[in-house]
Amino acid sequence: MKVKVSRKEHFNAAHRLYNPEWSDQENERVFGKCANPNFHGHNYDLVVSLTGEPDPATGYVYDMKKLSDVIRHNVIRKFDHKNLNLDTEYFRNLNPTAENIAIVIWRILREQIESKFDLKITLYETERNFVEYPAS
Amino acid sequence: MKVKVSRKEHFNAAHRLYNPEWSDQENERVFGKCANPNFHGHNYDLVVSLTGEPDPATGYVYDMKKLSDVIRHNVIRKFDHKNLNLDTEYFRNLNPTAENIAIVIWRILREQIESKFDLKITLYETERNFVEYPAS
Amino acid sequence: MKVKVSRKEHFNAAHRLYNPEWSDQENERVFGKCANPNFHGHNYDLVVSLTGEPDPATGYVYDMKKLSDVIRHNVIRKFDHKNLNLDTEYFRNLNPTAENIAIVIWRILREQIESKFDLKITLYETERNFVEYPAS
Amino acid sequence: MKVKVSRKEHFNAAHRLYNPEWSDQENERVFGKCANPNFHGHNYDLVVSLTGEPDPATGYVYDMKKLSDVIRHNVIRKFDHKNLNLDTEYFRNLNPTAENIAIVIWRILREQIESKFDLKITLYETERNFVEYPAS
Amino acid sequence: MKVKVSRKEHFNAAHRLYNPEWSDQENERVFGKCANPNFHGHNYDLVVSLTGEPDPATGYVYDMKKLSDVIRHNVIRKFDHKNLNLDTEYFRNLNPTAENIAIVIWRILREQIESKFDLKITLYETERNFVEYPAS
Amino acid sequence: MKVKVSRKEHFNAAHRLYNPEWSDQENERVFGKCANPNFHGHNYDLVVSLTGEPDPATGYVYDMKKLSDVIRHNVIRKFDHKNLNLDTEYFRNLNPTAENIAIVIWRILREQIESKFDLKITLYETERNFVEYPAS
Repeated sequence: MKVKVSRKEHFNAAHRLYNPEWSDQENERVFGKCANPNFHGHNYDLVVSLTGEPDPATGYVYDMKKLSDVIRHNVIRKFDHKNLNLDTEYFRNLNPTAENIAIVIWRILREQIESKFDLKITLYETERNFVEYPAS
Repeated sequence: MKVKVSRKEHFNAAHRLYNPEWSDQENERVFGKCANPNFHGHNYDLVVSLTGEPDPATGYVYDMKKLSDVIRHNVIRKFDHKNLNLDTEYFRNLNPTAENIAIVIWRILREQIESKFDLKITLYETERNFVEYPAS
Repeated sequence: MKVKVSRKEHFNAAHRLYNPEWSDQENERVFGKCANPNFHGHNYDLVVSLTGEPDPATGYVYDMKKLSDVIRHNVIRKFDHKNLNLDTEYFRNLNPTAENIAIVIWRILREQIESKFDLKITLYETERNFVEYPAS
Repeated sequence: MKVKVSRKEHFNAAHRLYNPEWSDQENERVFGKCANPNFHGHNYDLVVSLTGEPDPATGYVYDMKKLSDVIRHNVIRKFDHKNLNLDTEYFRNLNPTAENIAIVIWRILREQIESKFDLKITLYETERNFVEYPAS
Repeated sequence: MKVKVSRKEHFNAAHRLYNPEWSDQENERVFGKCANPNFHGHNYDLVVSLTGEPDPATGYVYDMKKLSDVIRHNVIRKFDHKNLNLDTEYFRNLNPTAENIAIVIWRILREQIESKFDLKITLYETERNFVEYPAS
Repeated sequence: MKVKVSRKEHFNAAHRLYNPEWSDQENERVFGKCANPNFHGHNYDLVVSLTGEPDPATGYVYDMKKLSDVIRHNVIRKFDHKNLNLDTEYFRNLNPTAENIAIVIWRILREQIESKFDLKITLYETERNFVEYPAS
């Protein structure tokens, strides 16, 4: 009788996409305007989903207030109003595509959420572009 | 060649979260402001999803007008503008968390929808908190 | 060179609509299911708009972080997860229609916001029903 | 380490639902106002999702700009501001229900997207009615 | 102490834009793909706003349930799942642009709503294109 | 018989808020995390509204396709995927608050839109913070 519960949070950040092993021309050819050396930015919407059995005593799979606190302390505090490339340790050597940001957030939260819960990340870079990890 | 079809409906209801076996202090410790004895409320958005093969004669998996009628007659009529704790039979002895409301709605509709269709409930308690049952 | 700046906040509350001078039948005739004696509830979205000149030193008409704090301290803290009829002083003798809630919030905030700023309240009771005060 | 990436596009089209082997009365009985011989229409929102491994050199599963171009060239150009029944080859002999439109779009795009990527279509006919193909 | 109250409804319709006094080429030059002779369509979102004083006995400017009924009976019933050009009397000799549809709806409802209420129409043709009448 | 017509576009940009005449401490005290020297960013939603009489021959106040092109050529092309502080001439000596961005966009477009049309800018920095210029 498993239920999936989801909490939406958001953060606003700057980033640029580029591969340091490539020339500027190659980066612009592949990443287009996303390679702008002076950065651009997004309002990221983050949905964190946990799957598990509701606790008979509470009716909760997981306390959404607690999940919100876990996300804010471990993710939002580190990413909100930051430059993902310059201000975070995670994207020093990793391109901050939506795919990679979702994988990084999953790894951060997987250490905070007990293993009996399945964990899934959905990240909206814009209303029109979004990613899910893991995929299924 | 299975297709999943979904219909969104909504209802507005009051509720409170509490466990009658616990003290008021314990309820407030666990459920916080959701335990307010005078209730609070939500605009619930309900998505009902059926999975099946499209009928070759109609191109429909299920007539969305009929699905809307089934949801309204069996769920919305009972929950809309109600106090879930006081006005419905379902939550006399069951805490009306989003998880439990979704499971209750699934059980109500499972009896109305032919078994050849998979049935899934997604319930938004707020724009930021939502649950899915069954989980996969 | 006046600019209108707006901040959206939200609160979840229970309420019922009724006129204590009327019979139950009359209340049900006028307010329908909104008169349910056991209450129902909503996720209210509240937009607070201030109009004024941008400060040349900051480029702000009003600091949105400060406006958010003012709204949370004076409105959200009092209304969120409350029963508007039973838990607040404002609706002891005033029917908590969207119209009246908007007027009450305007009066609360008018005392907090310097008079040089025009103040306007938009309150969404549901996605489909909303009110604005003052009207223009 | 598979990630699902999604791109949302939209098109506005006219259509009617009917089965040419049935009488007008039968079509109206089954499809109601959707059988109107003079057509009606919708703003369709289309989400195309691909699942695969992020490329280590780019951090992309698939370039969203390229995916947008593929969708626009192969789907939007053919369906936007069209009458699905009269102006497209796909629905000459197929009822343009949301289910069938999603299956047709899947078939069109399956030929354009390398087979190493899983492909899924979500089509919103209205905010309240939407379909997914394949279902899981 | 005037309050503006608003109700959102929606209808799905087909239409085309053209001027019968112009050649096909001229229509296509001016209206582009909106001139498609086989029509296209939209999910129209309609917001009807009334401004007036709240009734002291009810706290309502206008009963939203009654406003919904007035809109459905006088507008939605005539326009929903219709071809605006062919199925309605209003656009026989009037181009069904969003501007003209809003003016027509205002005229229809102005006869139904007592003159003591100001009346305003907001019509969304798509999420990105919308019109308001009267303008202020 | 004036109608207000509106078109929504969007751009993604990086920015920081600061006053070069102030110390770093003073900037952080006033602008908080928005003063981050490495920038942050937003998905800006921009609504441009024109008010005028519908042209009797077209039924248009203004061709929305043309308005979209004017906005894209004069605003989006300059701001999208840019660093507002570093990459644009407009914010070299002007703090890129939402208020100032809206005023700058109004000035840019006022030169492109004939003076017979009233012009208004609504800019959403986030879903929760937005500004309008001019205010009425």
